[in-house]
Amino acid sequence: MPNTAPELLYLLHGDPAELAETLAGMRAADIAESLRNLPSAGAAKVMAALPFDLAVQVFDEPELEHRYEIVQRMETDAATALVEAMSADQQADLFRELRPVDRERLLGKLDEQSRRALTLLLRYRAESAGGIMTTEVLTVSQDWTVERTLSHIREVAHGKETVYVIYVLDDSQHLVHVVSLRQLIVADPSTTVREVGDRRRPVTVSPDTDREEVARVIAKYNLLAVPVVDEERRVLGIVTVDDVIDAIVREQTEDVQKFGGMEALGAPYMDISLGRMIGKRAPWLCALFLSEMLTATAMQRFQSEIDKATLLAMFIPLVMSSGGNSGSQATSLIIRALALGEIKLRDWWRIAVRELPTGLTLGGILGVIGFVRIMVWQQLGFFDYGVHHVLVALTVGCSLVGIVTFGSLAGSMLPFVLRRLGFDPASASAPFVATLVDVTGLVIYFSVAWVILHGTLL
Amino acid sequence: MPNTAPELLYLLHGDPAELAETLAGMRAADIAESLRNLPSAGAAKVMAALPFDLAVQVFDEPELEHRYEIVQRMETDAATALVEAMSADQQADLFRELRPVDRERLLGKLDEQSRRALTLLLRYRAESAGGIMTTEVLTVSQDWTVERTLSHIREVAHGKETVYVIYVLDDSQHLVHVVSLRQLIVADPSTTVREVGDRRRPVTVSPDTDREEVARVIAKYNLLAVPVVDEERRVLGIVTVDDVIDAIVREQTEDVQKFGGMEALGAPYMDISLGRMIGKRAPWLCALFLSEMLTATAMQRFQSEIDKATLLAMFIPLVMSSGGNSGSQATSLIIRALALGEIKLRDWWRIAVRELPTGLTLGGILGVIGFVRIMVWQQLGFFDYGVHHVLVALTVGCSLVGIVTFGSLAGSMLPFVLRRLGFDPASASAPFVATLVDVTGLVIYFSVAWVILHGTLL
Repeated sequence: MPNTAPELLYLLHGDPAELAETLAGMRAADIAESLRNLPSAGAAKVMAALPFDLAVQVFDEPELEHRYEIVQRMETDAATALVEAMSADQQADLFRELRPVDRERLLGKLDEQSRRALTLLLRYRAESAGGIMTTEVLTVSQDWTVERTLSHIREVAHGKETVYVIYVLDDSQHLVHVVSLRQLIVADPSTTVREVGDRRRPVTVSPDTDREEVARVIAKYNLLAVPVVDEERRVLGIVTVDDVIDAIVREQTEDVQKFGGMEALGAPYMDISLGRMIGKRAPWLCALFLSEMLTATAMQRFQSEIDKATLLAMFIPLVMSSGGNSGSQATSLIIRALALGEIKLRDWWRIAVRELPTGLTLGGILGVIGFVRIMVWQQLGFFDYGVHHVLVALTVGCSLVGIVTFGSLAGSMLPFVLRRLGFDPASASAPFVATLVDVTGLVIYFSVAWVILHGTLL
Repeated sequence: MPNTAPELLYLLHGDPAELAETLAGMRAADIAESLRNLPSAGAAKVMAALPFDLAVQVFDEPELEHRYEIVQRMETDAATALVEAMSADQQADLFRELRPVDRERLLGKLDEQSRRALTLLLRYRAESAGGIMTTEVLTVSQDWTVERTLSHIREVAHGKETVYVIYVLDDSQHLVHVVSLRQLIVADPSTTVREVGDRRRPVTVSPDTDREEVARVIAKYNLLAVPVVDEERRVLGIVTVDDVIDAIVREQTEDVQKFGGMEALGAPYMDISLGRMIGKRAPWLCALFLSEMLTATAMQRFQSEIDKATLLAMFIPLVMSSGGNSGSQATSLIIRALALGEIKLRDWWRIAVRELPTGLTLGGILGVIGFVRIMVWQQLGFFDYGVHHVLVALTVGCSLVGIVTFGSLAGSMLPFVLRRLGFDPASASAPFVATLVDVTGLVIYFSVAWVILHGTLL
């Protein structure tokens, strides 16, 4: 693992030759990682010291998350040269983050071809296949021979994102076939590319396909790249496997953060300012707090019961949290199964049918533990729950069955409801479920108490 | 998307010829997906109807999760032929799931070479580079020319997992260089492979490297495969990018389920039996329940306060849940940052320094909302909190500051503590944090109440 300390040191001591030499021996990904930890002014200086080819490679790394800030600090000409040499998908990624003024400044300087490609890519959502694809695709005509194709690959290899997958087009530029370089090099050089390899219709995605779905397609069919085609099967670009890994990892981070009950950060934890961090966390926390206020309202309604039997208040945290916990389990299961495509929206009924017995069993287990706990404490004299302690234990036990069952059902259905309403099911966070279950939990608890303790404690 | 209905139908009507024809037109991954939804006896029948080459491809799909059950239902000879033709990494994956008796039965029938390779792979943990690598590696000697290497690739292409990365060995079989097929086809055919491409030391991993770390290395350097080498840099195998995607997705599923407060399922939601599902959820739920019992103990200690002011009980759910929610946010952030390698164990102090002001601010915001809520309800006559309503509102507001701050700190430190103790930081689930914060939340709440309400309500 490279350390950022030497780079910082060289920068401070200001020996650019030595700095350039150190950097030239490093891999682009490692340089990008080191630059991430430098302020953008310093990073811009280092970029200027790099040989142009290496600088382009470093800038092609999506891990260099503040490259937009670096570009903003560079002179227009240097920045233009760098951006023009980047791959199309990374250009688009960079431009999405630039300030509008810098975007205009740079876009005006780019050559016609780059500008056209970039403008096209920027039209797509960043989370779609169109948003993460690159336009540097290796296409050949269907009547070319294997030999001609191979020599074409040798010529154009430098400018293409991948040369391992070759897209074969008919005379009207429609995608008709896909061959791999592996198939080409073992094929008879005089056959046409159309005849090499698998005859099935190529796997494709549309530019609007969600990047999660693109990842699923690539992973499922073990592809190195998937072509993005329009309705007439004209190739707009390709998404390569390494872009997909980046997309999977980003998506994963967002999902975990959402499940934790906040907006996705969109940047590494240590890179984000305190103000933005609070801005990402406060809204959800406040929304949950406002919903949770319903518990106070519910408690007010049950005040006379609490006044009569303060004993009941003691088990409120225990009973409520169990509902939240079982709900959180169920939600995490369903979110993940939905994300992986294991279950579909229409399966909600099959899930409910499974969660009901699961919840009842889990609730039964906790109910027995809760009942035993109160009886044991009473018998051993740890605490005196009064003459009606059996009824109190029964109240806690029975309400646990109801609350855990409700928690499992509510937790498993929430992601479906969210998806049905057009939201991301991953927004069904653990705190969201807990809040949902808390109010109902109180109502269940006090209703069970009323039934069991009516005429004795209540 | 293929549908499983036709396959099921054909099976039921029992026309094997028609079934074989339908399947022959499908991709291996799609057949595997269809088979997943069939009981293993039916799936074994379908496998028997497939042409051998396609059957091997289907069996090479890790998505066919119950293939071990299918193998157990096949005749030994048919199963042996199939297993021998599979790629080494998938063989190992399959053997890990077989019953010991079937493992012995099949292992004895395999040819010497397959058995040796498999025995080697089975020695590694399933979550390590050694456990997911394949041994079908394309290696060449360093003094070979590009031309000789290319013709060698054409010969052996069929049996290798990838031909796009070629590993160059010195005379003692140590890895000295890596070239890509891309670099080879544009290189001068008469140069030696040693001289082609990048001269830097190849990126490698050791067989014990965690699969998450392997994924990180492949993603970072945009590799198609990474070699697994021993201490002397002899190549033991390679991990390819598609294996890594499978590993990332599995890891992600486990992490989400753990964060939801349960053991990872290890199988799709709909495939797992109700009994196993409960077995995965009940232990954590019980552990959380037993810990949460501390809240009942805490409440018992504060019973005299509750007796004096039942009003205080009303805000317990609200105040407690806010601590859990802020803790859940902080935990999800830190788990993810640790998983991505953005922060290290030694950074705990820097995190604490950030979470303290964040927690104070978030707590301050909720505190103000809570205070205002009580004052407004009182003023508008929605509920009467008594003559000391300002003090009650102040109690709720101040304890929220304390509880949310404590929640953020505890939630962010828990993953560090777990990693320090040798556990997976992802075990720091949302319910775990909530439980941790609940007891402390009660203590904070009643302590604040005592300070503010002493002499009035208490």
